[in-house]
Amino acid sequence: MEKQIIEIARSARKASRKTAILSTDKKNMALEEIRKSLQKNYKKIQDENLKDISEAEKRGLSSAMIDRLTLSDKVMDAMIAGIDEVILLDDPVGSIGPIKKRPNGLEVGRMNIPIGVIGMIYESRPNVTIDAAVLCLKAGNAVILRGGTEAFHSNQVLAMAISEGLEKAGLDKNCVQIIPFREREAVNFLLKQEGLIDLLIPRGGEGLIRFVTENSSVPVLKHYKGVCHVYIDKFADLSMGADIAFNSKVQRPGVCNAMETLLVHKDVSEKFLPLIGKMYKDAGVEIRGCVKTCKILKDAVHADPSDFGKEFLDLIAAVKVVDTFHEAVEHISLNNSGHTESIVTKDYSRARRFLREVDSSVVLVNASTRFNDGNQLGLGAEIGISTDKLHAYGPMGIEELTTRKFIVFGDGQIRS
Amino acid sequence: MEKQIIEIARSARKASRKTAILSTDKKNMALEEIRKSLQKNYKKIQDENLKDISEAEKRGLSSAMIDRLTLSDKVMDAMIAGIDEVILLDDPVGSIGPIKKRPNGLEVGRMNIPIGVIGMIYESRPNVTIDAAVLCLKAGNAVILRGGTEAFHSNQVLAMAISEGLEKAGLDKNCVQIIPFREREAVNFLLKQEGLIDLLIPRGGEGLIRFVTENSSVPVLKHYKGVCHVYIDKFADLSMGADIAFNSKVQRPGVCNAMETLLVHKDVSEKFLPLIGKMYKDAGVEIRGCVKTCKILKDAVHADPSDFGKEFLDLIAAVKVVDTFHEAVEHISLNNSGHTESIVTKDYSRARRFLREVDSSVVLVNASTRFNDGNQLGLGAEIGISTDKLHAYGPMGIEELTTRKFIVFGDGQIRS
Repeated sequence: MEKQIIEIARSARKASRKTAILSTDKKNMALEEIRKSLQKNYKKIQDENLKDISEAEKRGLSSAMIDRLTLSDKVMDAMIAGIDEVILLDDPVGSIGPIKKRPNGLEVGRMNIPIGVIGMIYESRPNVTIDAAVLCLKAGNAVILRGGTEAFHSNQVLAMAISEGLEKAGLDKNCVQIIPFREREAVNFLLKQEGLIDLLIPRGGEGLIRFVTENSSVPVLKHYKGVCHVYIDKFADLSMGADIAFNSKVQRPGVCNAMETLLVHKDVSEKFLPLIGKMYKDAGVEIRGCVKTCKILKDAVHADPSDFGKEFLDLIAAVKVVDTFHEAVEHISLNNSGHTESIVTKDYSRARRFLREVDSSVVLVNASTRFNDGNQLGLGAEIGISTDKLHAYGPMGIEELTTRKFIVFGDGQIRS
Repeated sequence: MEKQIIEIARSARKASRKTAILSTDKKNMALEEIRKSLQKNYKKIQDENLKDISEAEKRGLSSAMIDRLTLSDKVMDAMIAGIDEVILLDDPVGSIGPIKKRPNGLEVGRMNIPIGVIGMIYESRPNVTIDAAVLCLKAGNAVILRGGTEAFHSNQVLAMAISEGLEKAGLDKNCVQIIPFREREAVNFLLKQEGLIDLLIPRGGEGLIRFVTENSSVPVLKHYKGVCHVYIDKFADLSMGADIAFNSKVQRPGVCNAMETLLVHKDVSEKFLPLIGKMYKDAGVEIRGCVKTCKILKDAVHADPSDFGKEFLDLIAAVKVVDTFHEAVEHISLNNSGHTESIVTKDYSRARRFLREVDSSVVLVNASTRFNDGNQLGLGAEIGISTDKLHAYGPMGIEELTTRKFIVFGDGQIRS
């Protein structure tokens, strides 16, 4: 198995040199052919998907997991429509930033180039196979895909459909490859292909991500979890604050940009907490409050210290009353995960300070945490969200799948 | 030892939150105080340095290594003058890029922020202690330094001088710390401080860098080696080509941006090779040539296949005649190290193609490879050169010691 994985990585590396210099038109044509191929193989893909589903049912996987695994017509159509969106994205490759002239006459600029070979390691959702492949390809990269074992048949047939499209478009089909092994140890070999793979992006549970980080000699862009905070400041518009705290928690509680902890300034807590308390109650949100919160909201549960900093991914909110703006920022610094934090305030200087002092990939004033999303922030399709600070911090779009090299125009300069 | 290293990392993390929001004036004042402290402790630093030198002599280290270790007046003065250069650098922290308005009225921008805590692991030259500390600090980072064991006394006293300066300026002295252990295993503990350290930058031999990369759970920015190429095209100005090939090889052969392999188009090889051959011979450069090269240059040594792609760091050049432009680009792709490549040509379209098709951190037209250097390319002081594509590719200046977060201005937006 190791030999074959090295062979996949080698052929991907070779293919990456070709995809790096493809014209935008050619890349879009290839995406178009992939879309056609998915349409042509629509039924076949769903048939293979059914195999995964029936295996999952036999293994007794949860209905939530089976739901994520299922390529319904709706999911299929969204996946196919997603390709059109990527076709419309600006191609970042080859664009050159400002060119500066040095005292010796050298002109120095930076050109966007693809990263090279990207390895995606992901769980359950088979549509990631398509999303990742087309976005990486549009940015001029070759990609090696390793999906979840539970989606094995779906991923294999999707990869076959991609290959068909690539061949139709006259591209090297090795620019998108899928690992043909179901065994978990296949991942271990991928992690060691330094020099052949330039970047790994694991997407899935914290366990998977930790495993990849700890064992990879290839650079990893990762996203552990989202412990997002909303802070209702002393100078907040309380009705706006309630809407934002509600939306951040309730609109889709199972995702990483949902709020987990609500901080409320003491001067407004007596007014604000009953307001949001009622809204949460009606929506079935369990409140785990600090001592002060529980004094005001009689039906709140007493929070355990570990509830602050916890990613519930559920209709549960930790709520804490803070004495000062400073305490709110401190609490966030000690408990956040570099994901998303929002302040609700009408005060100019507190808004500015919050934006500067809070260290998270997305910091908002007077808006829901749910806006941390590539599409919502204007990046178009996203490949993931990075909570690490290297290369990308926050949502990663097509531009984050490129890097920059220096280009230098001379007329005979030598160094003295 | 592990406990103490964790304590260092923790206190650095804490300090990093303070340095992240310091004003530029305050940071410059601190650098000023560090400079004064180095001047005050000038003699003491050199005395400690003598201890390292005498130990190195006893251990029989090479004179080149002892040279790198020595804090002569010249090195001391350059080190101190380097601080003034960093004071003059623009502070990237807090600057905000274009702010775009989304259809729902949200305004989205990106703000430059420090990376956080940076670990520098380096060998021999003790002046890196100062260079790295002041550059990281100016970019708002806390830094943990781990110098070579052979420079132990020098590094400790330099760190003491930095601490004195930081305290004078009223900064948390934990923002620059040095590992107080000489044992190599101290490095192992540093590599595991994920969550406390954001980035490791190893500087030194390939062995050190491989060790760090393979064992670190913290992201690493690395630079393995420089296998740089100069390609003399069919349409080259041959006299310019000779100057560039000579300067790239001879001006400072022991450094990573020196040329290692010279490629010559067959149509000009009969004219060009005797020209550069004489210049190299006079400078004592050994030529290891391909078969065609050796036919033209009678005193060239026959190259072993492994000479192509080798980093000689010496007055040795591998020389190969290529049949086509394409062969030159192919040869570079298969043998380069992502460092620096230069083409000499008068042809517009070949210049453009070389810039686009060659994948290296710095690609030049008609200029010496020796210009791959932060200062020469206009970045000011550099912390190193990355041959990895993530986060930075090529020389890393102060801007590469920062990252960007998203900032979002709303007026009550929630997601529907």
